[in-house]
Amino acid sequence: MLAIGAEAKAAARRLALAATGQKNTALDAIARAIRAQAGQILAANADDLADARRDGLAASFVDRLTLNPTRIEAMAAGVEIVRDLADPVGAVMAEWDRPNGLHFERVRAPLGVIGVIYESRPNVTVDAGALCLKAGNAVILRGGSDSFRSSRAIHAAIVAGLEAAGLPAAAVSLVPTRDRSAVGLMLQGLGGTVDVIVPRGGRSLVARVQAEARVPVFAHLDGNCHVYVHAGADLAMAEAILVNAKMRRTGVCGAAETLLVDRSVTGSHLKPLVSALLDAGCAVRGDSLTGLADPRVTAATDEDWGTEFLDAIIAVKVVDGLDDAIAHIERYGSHHTDAIITADAAAAERFLAEVDSAIVLHNASTQFADGGEFGFGAEIGIATGKMHARGPVGVEQLTSFKYRVRGTGQLRP
Amino acid sequence: MLAIGAEAKAAARRLALAATGQKNTALDAIARAIRAQAGQILAANADDLADARRDGLAASFVDRLTLNPTRIEAMAAGVEIVRDLADPVGAVMAEWDRPNGLHFERVRAPLGVIGVIYESRPNVTVDAGALCLKAGNAVILRGGSDSFRSSRAIHAAIVAGLEAAGLPAAAVSLVPTRDRSAVGLMLQGLGGTVDVIVPRGGRSLVARVQAEARVPVFAHLDGNCHVYVHAGADLAMAEAILVNAKMRRTGVCGAAETLLVDRSVTGSHLKPLVSALLDAGCAVRGDSLTGLADPRVTAATDEDWGTEFLDAIIAVKVVDGLDDAIAHIERYGSHHTDAIITADAAAAERFLAEVDSAIVLHNASTQFADGGEFGFGAEIGIATGKMHARGPVGVEQLTSFKYRVRGTGQLRP
Repeated sequence: MLAIGAEAKAAARRLALAATGQKNTALDAIARAIRAQAGQILAANADDLADARRDGLAASFVDRLTLNPTRIEAMAAGVEIVRDLADPVGAVMAEWDRPNGLHFERVRAPLGVIGVIYESRPNVTVDAGALCLKAGNAVILRGGSDSFRSSRAIHAAIVAGLEAAGLPAAAVSLVPTRDRSAVGLMLQGLGGTVDVIVPRGGRSLVARVQAEARVPVFAHLDGNCHVYVHAGADLAMAEAILVNAKMRRTGVCGAAETLLVDRSVTGSHLKPLVSALLDAGCAVRGDSLTGLADPRVTAATDEDWGTEFLDAIIAVKVVDGLDDAIAHIERYGSHHTDAIITADAAAAERFLAEVDSAIVLHNASTQFADGGEFGFGAEIGIATGKMHARGPVGVEQLTSFKYRVRGTGQLRP
Repeated sequence: MLAIGAEAKAAARRLALAATGQKNTALDAIARAIRAQAGQILAANADDLADARRDGLAASFVDRLTLNPTRIEAMAAGVEIVRDLADPVGAVMAEWDRPNGLHFERVRAPLGVIGVIYESRPNVTVDAGALCLKAGNAVILRGGSDSFRSSRAIHAAIVAGLEAAGLPAAAVSLVPTRDRSAVGLMLQGLGGTVDVIVPRGGRSLVARVQAEARVPVFAHLDGNCHVYVHAGADLAMAEAILVNAKMRRTGVCGAAETLLVDRSVTGSHLKPLVSALLDAGCAVRGDSLTGLADPRVTAATDEDWGTEFLDAIIAVKVVDGLDDAIAHIERYGSHHTDAIITADAAAAERFLAEVDSAIVLHNASTQFADGGEFGFGAEIGIATGKMHARGPVGVEQLTSFKYRVRGTGQLRP
């Protein structure tokens, strides 16, 4: 494992200096190799699936593990999207002159070596690999052991693409063992070679990574997202956004988990909002006022306010105005994504300023919490920490920066 | 200690929402309180100094500990400089629209709670306190135990200023004990309340913080800075920059520690450069070619290439062109600040692109590695890590950001 770290670090140095054209050539070759090696990838995946079924793994788990020609084509097309993104490396983020004539530039530079630890979703192998490569980083991938053969077959296609472009194979490494101790070694930083860890998977994986990592982590533990229907909300807009935020996809981190309704509009808004959720198939756990709105509502417990259901369940609470709503979100939320629905611009500005979350929205669905929807092209995840990356982690967030200073012989007095 | 963390976190929430005017009023009141309470501060400092002399501490240590009216006025004036800096909080870093009409903004937001661990330099108490306050952060200060009474007297002035402006005293906390275990608790994050640690002091302090901290650290361990005199260097410019980079102040992190001279100009440049250093009072440890240039040169050991002397000593090596110079810097450097002297623009561009340091300079002294010289107004230190802050850590680097998204009822398809 330490050798993998050292090789990745050496590869990172070469990648950091690789021209945009060479990186794009590699991404192009990777997409072609994935298509060309679809047969081998599907055969490896069939072996993984046979074991998963034999071991009686859950249907949802088996579904995430499953590859088919459509999913393989989607992987290849995803690489082409990353190929077409602007290269962040070398981009000038700011520049200025000083009175002594020195010219300063702040320019994007790669981070170095990124460790990605993920569960048995084989597509992460190529999604994460392509994104790190574009940003000039080397990546060490450690996928779930149940997808080991699938990931290895996909990795072979990535290596073929790298080598076709003259880039080192160690630019995208796959931990060559199912041994779980490899994860612990990565979290320790592999002898100082790993610069950041990105976990991709469920809460227990992220919690372990956050607890044990001795290197920075880009992640979110929970996405306990709120929709706050303010006194000034248009009911039809609130209803449409709420149902979209909760029910479009219930298993994503940007799905709404709690609805807060302003006390002043409970008479007009509470019953229609709750009924719309119930009619859309969502279970509603509400406080006492919400319980009066519809007999199908069950009583919420204190635990419900802090729960990311990731299912067709929502907690509903009546709040005493904007301050109470913000205080509730600060107390129970996860600083991921929260929305206010209102026609009152001043209330919206206060909500956007005062809610301390990575993403705050006014009159839009929380399900827009996604790098693609932000226009980033692709993302490796969403971070709720405040260090370095916050919100969707795209190709720019996978870079650092440096200062270039140009002079004509300046001495410091 | 855990109570200090909890109070700082609550204060951070209030500071994050404080208007620029209120923060500036506090900074103004802090500057006035420092001047008004100069007598108490000097009396407390006299007690610290008496103990330090009794304990036989080194003269340089006692000098850093010493306050006098001039140094107190400099502290107050430093607070006024921070007051006059632009408030980074709320500044829009980027904004864009998406085809669906959503408007995105990336805006600066405070980091939260910053822990500053420093040695017995009482002025850091107010320098760090003011900078964190301006960026909307709460700060927990832990100064050296030999300056405890001085720091406590300065902290009393800070609290007077905060309270005069209606801000919580816990916005700037001073650990109220000399007990060394307090540092360990801060490095553990005080129950999740500390967001980042900034160590200010010597190598052993920084090394301990980097080894033990469970939260992010903004720091540099070494400033092993290089001046590379390329084949295309004008000799007079090289000589002036070199002497400034090495000798202006030898104890700062941006001081040059190694001179690399291109083999092709050893005949013309090596002897004058080495003589200029020697004549300026600098000891020269050189490789064999450098030894031939002047009898006063002593032989360099391999260890010298990796040493930050922080003294009037320099290591000098002849290198085989640009690639060799870059390879030497990558191998022995500390990714802090490195400079190339040349009239060859192409060589300069390659050096600026390929040397993986926080600050890279062309035809200017490495001693410009300083937040003030960058135009940041003030800095809390210089970071060589690649996460979040790199190079001088000023008021902007003490912030995070969030995304504000404004819609008109958009649903995600």
